[in-house]
Amino acid sequence: MSKSKFEMDFYPTRTNSESKIISRTDPVVYDDSYDPLSKEQVEFFEKNGYLIFEDLFSSDEVDALFNELLSLSSDDTKKNMPQFILEETQRDVRSIFEIHKISKLYGRLCRDKRILKITQQLLGSRVYIHQSRVNLKPGFDGKEFYWHSDFETWHSEDGMPNMRAVSCSISLTKNYEFNGPLMVIPGSHKEFVSCSGKTPDEHYKQSLKRQEIGTPDKEILQKMVDKSEIISAKGGAGSVIFFDCNIMHGSNGNITPYPRSNAFFVYNSIHNKLVEPFCGLNPRPDYIAEREPVPLDPVENFLDS
Amino acid sequence: MSKSKFEMDFYPTRTNSESKIISRTDPVVYDDSYDPLSKEQVEFFEKNGYLIFEDLFSSDEVDALFNELLSLSSDDTKKNMPQFILEETQRDVRSIFEIHKISKLYGRLCRDKRILKITQQLLGSRVYIHQSRVNLKPGFDGKEFYWHSDFETWHSEDGMPNMRAVSCSISLTKNYEFNGPLMVIPGSHKEFVSCSGKTPDEHYKQSLKRQEIGTPDKEILQKMVDKSEIISAKGGAGSVIFFDCNIMHGSNGNITPYPRSNAFFVYNSIHNKLVEPFCGLNPRPDYIAEREPVPLDPVENFLDS
Repeated sequence: MSKSKFEMDFYPTRTNSESKIISRTDPVVYDDSYDPLSKEQVEFFEKNGYLIFEDLFSSDEVDALFNELLSLSSDDTKKNMPQFILEETQRDVRSIFEIHKISKLYGRLCRDKRILKITQQLLGSRVYIHQSRVNLKPGFDGKEFYWHSDFETWHSEDGMPNMRAVSCSISLTKNYEFNGPLMVIPGSHKEFVSCSGKTPDEHYKQSLKRQEIGTPDKEILQKMVDKSEIISAKGGAGSVIFFDCNIMHGSNGNITPYPRSNAFFVYNSIHNKLVEPFCGLNPRPDYIAEREPVPLDPVENFLDS
Repeated sequence: MSKSKFEMDFYPTRTNSESKIISRTDPVVYDDSYDPLSKEQVEFFEKNGYLIFEDLFSSDEVDALFNELLSLSSDDTKKNMPQFILEETQRDVRSIFEIHKISKLYGRLCRDKRILKITQQLLGSRVYIHQSRVNLKPGFDGKEFYWHSDFETWHSEDGMPNMRAVSCSISLTKNYEFNGPLMVIPGSHKEFVSCSGKTPDEHYKQSLKRQEIGTPDKEILQKMVDKSEIISAKGGAGSVIFFDCNIMHGSNGNITPYPRSNAFFVYNSIHNKLVEPFCGLNPRPDYIAEREPVPLDPVENFLDS
């Protein structure tokens, strides 16, 4: 493993100084070909930091994924695995990490060429899974996720050196406007918010339930939204959103009876492998941040085996 | 004050038995004339339990109301008045009760004929203010209000005998889809959900911050939504929603920087004055539930004095 003391830290954060904005020096799109994304799609992603596809997966495909998820999350013997994150107040499953290793079906899903080729194009290289998970936001008392940039955490706590990763979220339930859909601030991926505070040891054990360190100050958020707007990713089950590793995003709680579940894959370029965490602490476990970059090969369709 | 032991309790609730549905015996609309609401509007309200008016108040009028609200809520000397309800975790103002008595401007607002005449028509009589308040849902950490029927509380804790009251909410900020707008279940006003649990003494001190007693079971909510849908009251500042006292409603939290503020008046028919609370405890204070039904006279425009 590379030593971060030999790595330049272009995005210092949690240094105990004030929260502030640092300009992004990394590209957003690393490949200048237009396949499979069109020029318009690439330009949209470059400018806004996200791209939504309605109905990328069929209802049969979603059913298969959802059933697998129900079966895993109702398996009480699995709830003690560290990959299973439970709600703060109860025993319900909030997230399952490393889902592409725990489930063969999800292992093939992350290689499905409908999504894998898009991530290869955006990152201009072969890619591997930095993190995978499914999130289950139950109806009635789904908790909020406060605003954050994923890259801020991955850089600080995992040692991801550069912004050369993209997230892909596949909706397994309908995203209504009122069941806590993902909200993003378009264009916010072009600025890195260096956050105040210091990372505590084993921060992930708390932050996966409710993140407080590594979130931007209200004043900075207000400015970002004033300059842009908020977009929420509504859409049917089977819709997919790709979003840049540094885009500011979050989601409100959910008191409606409608659950919100999604599969979430983070693709990192094989040229952006992890070094020592820039926060100076031990890296997070492999099931949260993969340290072995094994590039993925596409499969035609994840349901064929 | 009438004794509730001589009153029939058509809507028993919090009796320690299971949560269950009781059919509404009271009318929804008490007047068969069509002025100022048209036949279509009356039929819509009768069926769905709510009615939305875009731009009922101009931006100048909203500005005047909002400035009054800012001035009141930033007055630290007032925060110790019982009418001022603070957020659970901090000193921010969540609601101000009895706003029509605390502020002369809001006192005239509740008599503005654009709203007063609609409530008189719906309730088929002269009306008085059962409760008034302004709600300030701040940006970033506005808390949720869980699903509830207002009438369930007013009946149980205030002694409101029948469903002959209507609420009017005036938006003082824009209601986006993501800043925790009011959500209602259309048609749910025709069923009374008798709730489980028993009312604790001085329940209002807790329930105004987070209501737990007097909320329906998940199974009943699920059925109500399956039979109908959820509608959220989006719209600009100055828009107004009227809703039946028994409609099931709630709102999600709000992590966006957009605050959500509204003025809220409950109009009760003078023929529906309060008796002793059906829960058997002492009534809530007058600033939460007015026991003296003094009918309101309309004013042409609340800004004229």
